[in-house]
Amino acid sequence: MAKKNALYAQSGGVTAVINASACGVIETARKHKNKIGKVYAGRNGIIGALTEDLIDTTKESAKSIAALRYTPSGAFGSCRYKLKGLEQNQREYARLIEVFEAHNIGYFFYNGGGDSADTCHKVSQISEAMGYPIQAIHVPKTVDNDLPITDNCPGFGSVAKYVAVSIREAAFDVASMAKTSTKIFVLEVMGRHAGWIAAAGGLAAEKDGDAPHIILFPEVRFDEAKFLDKVDKTVKKFGYCALVVSEGVRNQEGQFLAEAGGKDAFGHAQLGGVAPVIANLIKSKLGYKYHWAVADYLQRAARHIASKTDVDQAYAVGKAAVEFALKGKNAVMPAIVRKSSKPYKWAIGEADLSKVANVEKFMPENYITKDGFHITQKCREYLEPLIKGEDYPPYKNGLPQYVTLKNVAVKKKLKDFTI
Amino acid sequence: MAKKNALYAQSGGVTAVINASACGVIETARKHKNKIGKVYAGRNGIIGALTEDLIDTTKESAKSIAALRYTPSGAFGSCRYKLKGLEQNQREYARLIEVFEAHNIGYFFYNGGGDSADTCHKVSQISEAMGYPIQAIHVPKTVDNDLPITDNCPGFGSVAKYVAVSIREAAFDVASMAKTSTKIFVLEVMGRHAGWIAAAGGLAAEKDGDAPHIILFPEVRFDEAKFLDKVDKTVKKFGYCALVVSEGVRNQEGQFLAEAGGKDAFGHAQLGGVAPVIANLIKSKLGYKYHWAVADYLQRAARHIASKTDVDQAYAVGKAAVEFALKGKNAVMPAIVRKSSKPYKWAIGEADLSKVANVEKFMPENYITKDGFHITQKCREYLEPLIKGEDYPPYKNGLPQYVTLKNVAVKKKLKDFTI
Repeated sequence: MAKKNALYAQSGGVTAVINASACGVIETARKHKNKIGKVYAGRNGIIGALTEDLIDTTKESAKSIAALRYTPSGAFGSCRYKLKGLEQNQREYARLIEVFEAHNIGYFFYNGGGDSADTCHKVSQISEAMGYPIQAIHVPKTVDNDLPITDNCPGFGSVAKYVAVSIREAAFDVASMAKTSTKIFVLEVMGRHAGWIAAAGGLAAEKDGDAPHIILFPEVRFDEAKFLDKVDKTVKKFGYCALVVSEGVRNQEGQFLAEAGGKDAFGHAQLGGVAPVIANLIKSKLGYKYHWAVADYLQRAARHIASKTDVDQAYAVGKAAVEFALKGKNAVMPAIVRKSSKPYKWAIGEADLSKVANVEKFMPENYITKDGFHITQKCREYLEPLIKGEDYPPYKNGLPQYVTLKNVAVKKKLKDFTI
Repeated sequence: MAKKNALYAQSGGVTAVINASACGVIETARKHKNKIGKVYAGRNGIIGALTEDLIDTTKESAKSIAALRYTPSGAFGSCRYKLKGLEQNQREYARLIEVFEAHNIGYFFYNGGGDSADTCHKVSQISEAMGYPIQAIHVPKTVDNDLPITDNCPGFGSVAKYVAVSIREAAFDVASMAKTSTKIFVLEVMGRHAGWIAAAGGLAAEKDGDAPHIILFPEVRFDEAKFLDKVDKTVKKFGYCALVVSEGVRNQEGQFLAEAGGKDAFGHAQLGGVAPVIANLIKSKLGYKYHWAVADYLQRAARHIASKTDVDQAYAVGKAAVEFALKGKNAVMPAIVRKSSKPYKWAIGEADLSKVANVEKFMPENYITKDGFHITQKCREYLEPLIKGEDYPPYKNGLPQYVTLKNVAVKKKLKDFTI
C-alpha cells in the first residue's frame, strides 16, 4: 500500500465531544506513519476541502492534539453545507477528487450526522468512478442520536447528561421556593424531529414525584386540555411542576408550538422559544407563576459535564475509523454495538454506509409512556448507560482550559474554486 | 448560659450553596450540644417560623446533614416573604417571639440577602423590647452579590463560575460554526439591579478576541447605535460575536428592555427574555444569524459546577454564625474579608446588622470599561478568586446525588396563626 495522506473534516452542528473523535483519528494515524502520511483537516469542514483550504495537523503538538479530547466544539471549524446529488453537482465532486489528488489524499474521514454519511458514501463511489479511489470512512456524530445501525451517536450522551443534571438541579430550586413563589419550571431542549434529548431529561426522575414531571416530545402531538390537567394535578400533588420541552413539539395541526403565533403579555409576537409559550399558557389558564430556561447551545457545548461513556465512545469511533482505513475498508462507519445494558458493555462494529445514509432513527413507540408525558422503563434502560461517568476537563483560575489549535494552512496547489 | 434551642431559616431565592451554610450551622451546633439544644428549621423559611411549622433537624443523620454541603436549593424550603416594619406589623413580630418562647429558642440564624438582614435585625431589637431576648445572627446569601461590608456573598461565586464556563463553551461552539451558520450568540443571565453576574461572564475573556466580546450591564443604559456598531465590528474582526446580557439592562428611558409582565411577591417586575429581544435587534439591523439562551434557574442551581471558594465560604459563614452565637453576639453577620487577591486569602469578619440591612452594593464604576461593554482588569482581579476551584458532588448512574431531607415536623404548641 503506497503511503497516502488523510483528510479529516467535521460536519454540521458541533458537539461537546466531536473533537474527541478528531483526537482519536489523529492520535491513531500518528501511530501508523508508515502507512498514513499527514492528516490534513478541512477548514470549516467540507468547504475547506472544496476550496483547498486545508489545515496541516502535523503542526500541532501531541499535547494540543491530546487536549482535543476535552475540548468542545469543532477545532477545525465545521459547516452546514450539504453536497447535492451527483447529477446536479458533478462539479463539486470533481473538485473534491482534484483536491484529494493534488495533496495525495487516500483517506477521507468525515465526522458528522446523516447528511455527511450520505456525502461520505457518494465520495467513495464517485472517486472510484473517476479513477482516483478514496477510502471514505464516516465517523458518527450527532446530538440528535438519530443515526441508524449504531446503538447511539457520539455527542448525544453528553447533551443527555447536561439536560438530566440541569432539570434535576433547577427542580430542586423550584421545589424549595414553590410554597410562595415559582411553581412551574420549563426547560426547553433541542431535538426538532426526534425526542431523544427531551427523553434524557426523564432520567432525572428516579422515583415517584421526582422532576421532571412532564416531558413534551416532538413525537406526541400537543393536547392542551390533557396537558393542563396533568400540570394542575402535578402542582396539587407535589407543590410544583418541572417540565422538559422539546423545541420540536407540535400542535394538533402539526405546526411547531414555538411558531404557532404565540404572543407575550403585551400582545407582541413571541420571539422564538417554545418554553415561554408553554409557560405563558400555564400562567394564563392555571394562574401559576413560572420560570423558563432555554439551554440552546449551552447543552451541546457543555464539555464541563460531559458523559464519560460519550467521550470514550467518541474517541473510539475516531480511532476505529483509522483502523478500518488501515484494513483497506471503504464506505463504512464505525458503529457502537451494545452488548449488554446492565452492566453496560459496548464494542465497535462496522456499518455499511449505504445503509446509514439518509436514514433517520426515531424514538421507538414503547419508549414513551401511554399518556405521552414521560419515558418508559425500557427507555430508561437504554439511556442510562449513555450518561454514565464524569470526564472533567482541566481547570485553571476556575475555568476549563480548552485548546485552540494553530490551524496552519497547507500551501495551495490548485486554482481558486467558488462554491 | 441556659441551654437554648436554635432556629435556622432560609430566605429569598435559593442558591447552589445555601445548603452548605445550613450544613455549617447544623454541624457546628451539633458540636456544642452543651450550649445549643436542638436546631429547628423553619419550613419554607420565615413562614414556617410564623405558622409554627418547624422542622426538627435532629431527626436527620450526620450523613444527610453532611450531604447538604453539596446539595443545591433550600433543603428546608425558602420563601419570598418580607416582614413589614414594626409599626404596620406588630402582630407578626409578636408571633415570632411567641413561637421562639414556646420552643425555647434563643438563637435565630437567618440565611438570606438584604431583606432578610433587615428582618433579622428587627427580630433582635423587638425581642429585646418584648422581654424575650433572642440572639439574631444573619447568614449572608445572595447570587446578586449586593450585600454591603462583606467582600462578596456566598452563592454568587458559583453563579459566576457557571456563567463564565457556559459562555466560554457556547462561544467555542459558535466560533466553529460561524463561517456558514450562527454568528451571534446571546446568553441572558440574572442580575436585576447590579451587573455582578453579567460581569462574571467577562472572566472567560482572558485574551484579545476571547468571548464574551460584549457584556450588557444594568448599570449602563443601552445605546442601540453604539451597540450595533460594536457587534458589527466584532463579527467583522473575529467572525462571530458572543454576548452576555443582564436581564436588568435598560433603555435610555430607564425601562427594562424585556418585561415579562408579572410581578413577584415584593412587587418587583418579573423579568425574562431580554436575550431574544437583543438577538432579534441584531438580526433585523445587521442581518446576522443568531442563537440565544436563557439560563434562568439553571445558573443559580448549578451545584455540579459550583466554585470551591464559594462552597467553602458558604460553609464558613454558617459555622461562624454559630460561633458568634456561642460568644454571645447579637445582631451581627459573618462577613467575608479579603486579605489579598493574589494569592487569594480571606477570613471571616463581623458586620453590624444595622449597617447591612437594606443597603445594596452596586458595581464600582471602575469595574466597567469606558465603552460600557466589558469588565476592567480591576474587576477581573476582584472576581477571579471567587470562581476558583471545583467542588464536584458525588454521582451515581451519571447523575449528582443530592439529598432530600425527611423534614420531620416539630409538634405544635400554639394556636394557628394566619399570615
